[in-house]
Amino acid sequence: MDRDAFHVYDTTLRDGAQQEGLNLSVADKLAIARQLDGLGVGYIEGGWPGANPKDTEFFRRAQLELELEHAQLAAFGATRRVGMKAADDPLIAALRDSGAGVVTLVAKSHDRHVELALRTTLTENLAMIRDTVSHLRTEGQRVFLDAEHFFDGYRANRAYALEVLRTAAEAGAEVVALCDTNGGMLPDWVSDVVVDVREALSPDGARVGIHCHNDTGCAVANTLAAVDAGATHVQGTLNGYGERTGNADLVTVVANLELKLGRHVLPEGLLRDATRIAHAVAEVTNVPPASRQPYVGTSAFAHKAGLHASAIKVDPNLYQHMDPIGVGNDMRLLVSDMAGRASIELKGRELGFELDQDLVARITKRVKEMESRGYTFEAADASFELLLLEEVEGVRPSYFDIESWRVITETAGESEALSEATVKLRAAGGQRMVMTGEGNGPVNALDHALRQAIGQAWPEVAKFELIDYKVRIVDQGHGTDAITRVLIETTDGVSSWVTVGVGHNVIEASWRALLDGLTFGLRRHNA
Amino acid sequence: MDRDAFHVYDTTLRDGAQQEGLNLSVADKLAIARQLDGLGVGYIEGGWPGANPKDTEFFRRAQLELELEHAQLAAFGATRRVGMKAADDPLIAALRDSGAGVVTLVAKSHDRHVELALRTTLTENLAMIRDTVSHLRTEGQRVFLDAEHFFDGYRANRAYALEVLRTAAEAGAEVVALCDTNGGMLPDWVSDVVVDVREALSPDGARVGIHCHNDTGCAVANTLAAVDAGATHVQGTLNGYGERTGNADLVTVVANLELKLGRHVLPEGLLRDATRIAHAVAEVTNVPPASRQPYVGTSAFAHKAGLHASAIKVDPNLYQHMDPIGVGNDMRLLVSDMAGRASIELKGRELGFELDQDLVARITKRVKEMESRGYTFEAADASFELLLLEEVEGVRPSYFDIESWRVITETAGESEALSEATVKLRAAGGQRMVMTGEGNGPVNALDHALRQAIGQAWPEVAKFELIDYKVRIVDQGHGTDAITRVLIETTDGVSSWVTVGVGHNVIEASWRALLDGLTFGLRRHNA
Repeated sequence: MDRDAFHVYDTTLRDGAQQEGLNLSVADKLAIARQLDGLGVGYIEGGWPGANPKDTEFFRRAQLELELEHAQLAAFGATRRVGMKAADDPLIAALRDSGAGVVTLVAKSHDRHVELALRTTLTENLAMIRDTVSHLRTEGQRVFLDAEHFFDGYRANRAYALEVLRTAAEAGAEVVALCDTNGGMLPDWVSDVVVDVREALSPDGARVGIHCHNDTGCAVANTLAAVDAGATHVQGTLNGYGERTGNADLVTVVANLELKLGRHVLPEGLLRDATRIAHAVAEVTNVPPASRQPYVGTSAFAHKAGLHASAIKVDPNLYQHMDPIGVGNDMRLLVSDMAGRASIELKGRELGFELDQDLVARITKRVKEMESRGYTFEAADASFELLLLEEVEGVRPSYFDIESWRVITETAGESEALSEATVKLRAAGGQRMVMTGEGNGPVNALDHALRQAIGQAWPEVAKFELIDYKVRIVDQGHGTDAITRVLIETTDGVSSWVTVGVGHNVIEASWRALLDGLTFGLRRHNA
Repeated sequence: MDRDAFHVYDTTLRDGAQQEGLNLSVADKLAIARQLDGLGVGYIEGGWPGANPKDTEFFRRAQLELELEHAQLAAFGATRRVGMKAADDPLIAALRDSGAGVVTLVAKSHDRHVELALRTTLTENLAMIRDTVSHLRTEGQRVFLDAEHFFDGYRANRAYALEVLRTAAEAGAEVVALCDTNGGMLPDWVSDVVVDVREALSPDGARVGIHCHNDTGCAVANTLAAVDAGATHVQGTLNGYGERTGNADLVTVVANLELKLGRHVLPEGLLRDATRIAHAVAEVTNVPPASRQPYVGTSAFAHKAGLHASAIKVDPNLYQHMDPIGVGNDMRLLVSDMAGRASIELKGRELGFELDQDLVARITKRVKEMESRGYTFEAADASFELLLLEEVEGVRPSYFDIESWRVITETAGESEALSEATVKLRAAGGQRMVMTGEGNGPVNALDHALRQAIGQAWPEVAKFELIDYKVRIVDQGHGTDAITRVLIETTDGVSSWVTVGVGHNVIEASWRALLDGLTFGLRRHNA
């Protein structure tokens, strides 16, 4: 692959970080940059040195600490200020001195934005672009240009928008990236504009790039449309992070280019790490990954097998648009309420068990019976694995025997309610423990009491943490007959697993899911 | 608008319900159908009567309880079984007798699927389609056909895939919907196939429809590409629910068609309720809404104003791709919520209050403050009405004063947990009551204790019953910092109402929702 032939340009650290609720420390940014390099992107836009102290620090530390194998850093910043010389503008100096291999300048290309937001003339805006690009080129920098609000600007004043691009290209900008900053475009429109832009620029002029947002739900398709029309530089963010509806999801764009369109835009083989990398970055940003995310989502290759399980066994490719290994993901069969023997068998194999026909029959029967009582194993892989182990090994993994538990929640007047739980059990060592835990909710209190009670025998549980809790009334019998289902997600800091509990009493259902959660975690850590 | 000119066909209740972790009760389905009708979709696919007992029940109750203004129901099912007469197949009879206005038959159009999954010959598959469509037409039904795995089938055996469509059309199917069942298509490919299909079908033959999944992140763009190529029937789901990466998000598709492409596909004005409806449905499914969802996401028009605040004030349209009022959303400049003055005013009017501007401003402020603490009023109309009454009348309706409450849940060994609640309060008459209630869950126990304690003063509460209970963790702080939101539905046997409670403690949040539930019911019965 010729890396120069096509630019994969990531802006997670700059434009992605604009997402509501997303806050990245310098250490977070360095960690994400390493992941991006592992994916093999060509360019990593790190932020705006000079304008943002955190970004200045990022570029400083990046020079010392980052050893990038595939990517170059890009420093993002604006053109020189109105009425100043580029050489005199300290913000331009900060870009020049950031140590990044590329400077990406953002420039206004929509006439109204020049007048209203920049408060200057159209002519001065062009001069700012020309001066800044020329100056940085003279100083030996590679320069890319982000033409902000380009598509809206093109509609409002095509001649001026094109003049902005021409000015930048003639001054030496290597890339002119067309930004759909407000995100309102559709693929055909993008395509038409890119074709027109390429005709307007001299053939040996700048490379055309594309930068899309997802406001019409078409960020990926818009990016592909631009590439089809001749763009050879695509910008996007990991997991589609970004302001409003987000930016184009770079992994989806790249997977489509590589796997659907046969364009080799990443170093050979690296796309196979995409799922791991997308999830690792989600851990850093602390934004829960979207299970329905294309290619890398946990549900992206999940099937409610049911009637089709036997056909899936014969030829899985009849039921998936590609082999998930291409992006490092896996086909998953959901044990659903249409669970048939074939899907149990497949599921067992996924977990590493070759089940004989008797065992498959027995497990299928038991799953059906439990599902009729309100259980679901679709999301609760860990509870299913415990059930499987119990059937395979003849005994359910067990690390403690519960004697009893109790939880009290109370309040007086307007003060906040508090919960207090007492758990009595014997842990593996045989010693009887009576522990009381408090919490701002009954399940929290139970979790605390339980982990204290078994913590002496099994210190691993100190690392476990309850990170998600979902409750659902499954059998809408009237009032008191209703059955409650609880799903609990537990983490050990590295991975997480989901367990299920069912009962008439929400606290009891939660308790059962808690027990499974700890049992599964202990099994994983002690096997 | 001519509703016949274009079909907006929703399959949330059938294909959307295939989403991992999504389980809809019959009551949920009826509630979602009402919302879909409010959005003005033309068709609501309700499920597979005859094959699935829950769906049979849905269609039975729909006939009795649903009064649809805009939509017709569609019953989904397969073609007759191999080697049977359509007239003798009880599953076909169930489709015919469901009471739905349309029967949508799914048929295999990929040769390998016919052989492997259906285990029959290509000829028999065509006969199954012909017989089933003809039979249902003879019985006076409108018939649509979903050509499953159409795009993959077209690639594998174009002639056969087209023959499937022709057979259905000639037998009287009104629509042939091309399904990208595995979701691997890109817009240009869809476009080419739709053009070819339209040429292959006789010009006065069936209407061409499109059904896309989001596996390449292009479900919306693929749907638009099909429409551009001549499809006049689009299928999708609310919030893009569906297997794997989900189906095409119907709201995004429709908003693009109406607001970007000028196609009028919904009854005038109804798209303005899209945001409210998308969120109300998310409450029913208990799937947290995606804040980055195009058009209706809470972040879809959110701006970190910063530098641009003044320019945004001068001309907000410079910074948004459309006016969010078109989909009932709001521009947000600060980290805040969804509530806008217009929607408060509208909701007030809906509840029978003409609010003056001061009152609207005050209520908006209060709602925003409460939403920032985790409240939602999208689904909890009754709690909102109580808040409104408090602001309009200067005092919140109140029928009792709580002194304190406590609830204990305990178990020993394997026996079922039981809960016992004690409530101390003064009811309207002034008498102090101390009552203990039992229940198989803490909320039930509290409900029993509370209704006993106020039952002497307000005997109406004996009729009230808690019929639904939903819990969601809204602020996913780690473990103990999380905020819990509870929605409770209460009935008096005639109608029902939903209330909301929020707190760090799930029991306390439930308690608040319970109090609102009883207060609202008493207000309704005593006013």
